[in-house]
Amino acid sequence: MQKLFAVISESLKDLYDQKKVEKFIDAIEGSKRIFCSGIGRSGLVARAFAMRLMHLGYEAYVIGETITPRIELGDLLIAVSGSGETPIIVAFAKKTKEIGAKVVAVTSKADSSIAKIADLTIVLKSKFGKEISKFAPLGTLFEITALIFLDGIVAEIMEKKNISEDKLARRHSIENEVGL
Amino acid sequence: MQKLFAVISESLKDLYDQKKVEKFIDAIEGSKRIFCSGIGRSGLVARAFAMRLMHLGYEAYVIGETITPRIELGDLLIAVSGSGETPIIVAFAKKTKEIGAKVVAVTSKADSSIAKIADLTIVLKSKFGKEISKFAPLGTLFEITALIFLDGIVAEIMEKKNISEDKLARRHSIENEVGL
Amino acid sequence: MQKLFAVISESLKDLYDQKKVEKFIDAIEGSKRIFCSGIGRSGLVARAFAMRLMHLGYEAYVIGETITPRIELGDLLIAVSGSGETPIIVAFAKKTKEIGAKVVAVTSKADSSIAKIADLTIVLKSKFGKEISKFAPLGTLFEITALIFLDGIVAEIMEKKNISEDKLARRHSIENEVGL
Amino acid sequence: MQKLFAVISESLKDLYDQKKVEKFIDAIEGSKRIFCSGIGRSGLVARAFAMRLMHLGYEAYVIGETITPRIELGDLLIAVSGSGETPIIVAFAKKTKEIGAKVVAVTSKADSSIAKIADLTIVLKSKFGKEISKFAPLGTLFEITALIFLDGIVAEIMEKKNISEDKLARRHSIENEVGL
Repeated sequence: MQKLFAVISESLKDLYDQKKVEKFIDAIEGSKRIFCSGIGRSGLVARAFAMRLMHLGYEAYVIGETITPRIELGDLLIAVSGSGETPIIVAFAKKTKEIGAKVVAVTSKADSSIAKIADLTIVLKSKFGKEISKFAPLGTLFEITALIFLDGIVAEIMEKKNISEDKLARRHSIENEVGL
Repeated sequence: MQKLFAVISESLKDLYDQKKVEKFIDAIEGSKRIFCSGIGRSGLVARAFAMRLMHLGYEAYVIGETITPRIELGDLLIAVSGSGETPIIVAFAKKTKEIGAKVVAVTSKADSSIAKIADLTIVLKSKFGKEISKFAPLGTLFEITALIFLDGIVAEIMEKKNISEDKLARRHSIENEVGL
Repeated sequence: MQKLFAVISESLKDLYDQKKVEKFIDAIEGSKRIFCSGIGRSGLVARAFAMRLMHLGYEAYVIGETITPRIELGDLLIAVSGSGETPIIVAFAKKTKEIGAKVVAVTSKADSSIAKIADLTIVLKSKFGKEISKFAPLGTLFEITALIFLDGIVAEIMEKKNISEDKLARRHSIENEVGL
Repeated sequence: MQKLFAVISESLKDLYDQKKVEKFIDAIEGSKRIFCSGIGRSGLVARAFAMRLMHLGYEAYVIGETITPRIELGDLLIAVSGSGETPIIVAFAKKTKEIGAKVVAVTSKADSSIAKIADLTIVLKSKFGKEISKFAPLGTLFEITALIFLDGIVAEIMEKKNISEDKLARRHSIENEVGL
């Protein structure tokens, strides 16, 4: 467990990239609606971000959920895929580009299929190799750093637009509080 | 299986209630946003309806999904519960009333807790007793008739507002068609 | 709304096909685990069936949910797709066949891609044409008849294996009843 | 963003508690089935953990998903709630105790309702106050540290039971790889 913590702390040192952060926020700000997508645990990270985008006041959706409309011109797809090769996510990105909407990829591979399709790619590159697979199996490190990076984007948007925690809390679903 | 079919066909004969249908559509039309909720298979029925509401152009949500905002004054909760006593759904309905928003209950029990809270109750009453539990166990008949009734509401709205199938299709999620 | 009801009642007359029902139940009984899948409202129908399979005592999963394991030899995929061409579902079916597991397709098109891949195809053919699209848009009729047919399968299994409603109720999630 | 990273790195220093880790793993190992639950982003963290439990070979479920059976004697509920007061989660925990099954709470409040009910409470206490709400709003820090802590539990189980990444990968859903 402590090895995992050390690897995460070490990874956080390189996570900030001012230019990419600004471009990412510009993409969000410049879009009509924002669609988040990912498969497996990357999908959970995409959802965690979508929820905060909603709290921040954006019109955000998760592909695969019930009321998600069709992506249109002017919309943005945020595609989360560690390998950058998850076939369903690559297909969503291609379709999004066909429609004429934009794609931001969040991936650990700068030369992946998703990175080639995306208008902007956030590369959360691991400086660690196969040796961490014993305590951070499969996409673990990517998923954790992606969640943290995306929460960092939330922090940047809060600061930039001067949005308080209270304002976010006001959009919290009643599921959190029903006086059962 | 054929007994189930017979029971459903028989149930469809009583499903239409013009006044209730009109009031239900008025509630939908008169609301800013529509929140659908249900637990278990009733929740799946609620989602099926929420998806069509989105296709029809309404701002619809499913409680429990990622980007569902807080219910506010002017919104509508559609609560689907066969027994009318599902505790989480009753709690959602109470909270919705506290907030000052409206509740439509879809239930099989006219005197249930949810019916008492709701502004409008759609009672999908079964004329069958315990004898159908051998081939329509638990809430099966309620769930099927609720889905059909709610799809009937979709049909009524399409006619009333002259909305074509094509217009619905245009909002279909890319998940249905990605050219994989 | 009443036109929709008439169309459903009419459709129920042709829904029963004893041979197909027996083969379908054999496929379920002969499998180690059962994976249900569908996109959009067909996915909701697939889930409604998966829940009842669990209630009946089978090891059932829904593709796309959190704890769904990999399909293996000996497993069964139930693929619900009205058009029989939903790309993600066709891809799941192909992958399932590659792995050596079985596929049952539930579709309205006997000559669709999914029907060609499947070991067994349940065709819920509509005797109605484009004229019903004004009150039963998109896959509405397929989705309703698929739900009813699959609930009919549940009825048949209950009878065949002498499973009572009480036994199903014992597996109901605590979500339905938490004493809030 | 960098303030968030600093706060996370700082939090990781206190996250490891050998005794609690051992007790938590004992609870998992000693249970027949493991049910994960949480509302909102805590629910996404619960799901991320449930998926890895499945990859590790445990019978894991997420409350609210389709095929989740009833909790029974011998089972374990893992309840994730930052405040420890989320009413639905508290209700699940109470119900679980009534049934006679065990509860592990993952929370930031040692004296919360959920902590009082739980057999074992993992307290992920924040050493930061209200001042972090500007860049880590609502439960952000709890959710991130909960995900990391639970992934740390996965790492510990892998080491203890000598489970390789390959073994986990073999249970990966076909959703990740369908050759679309």
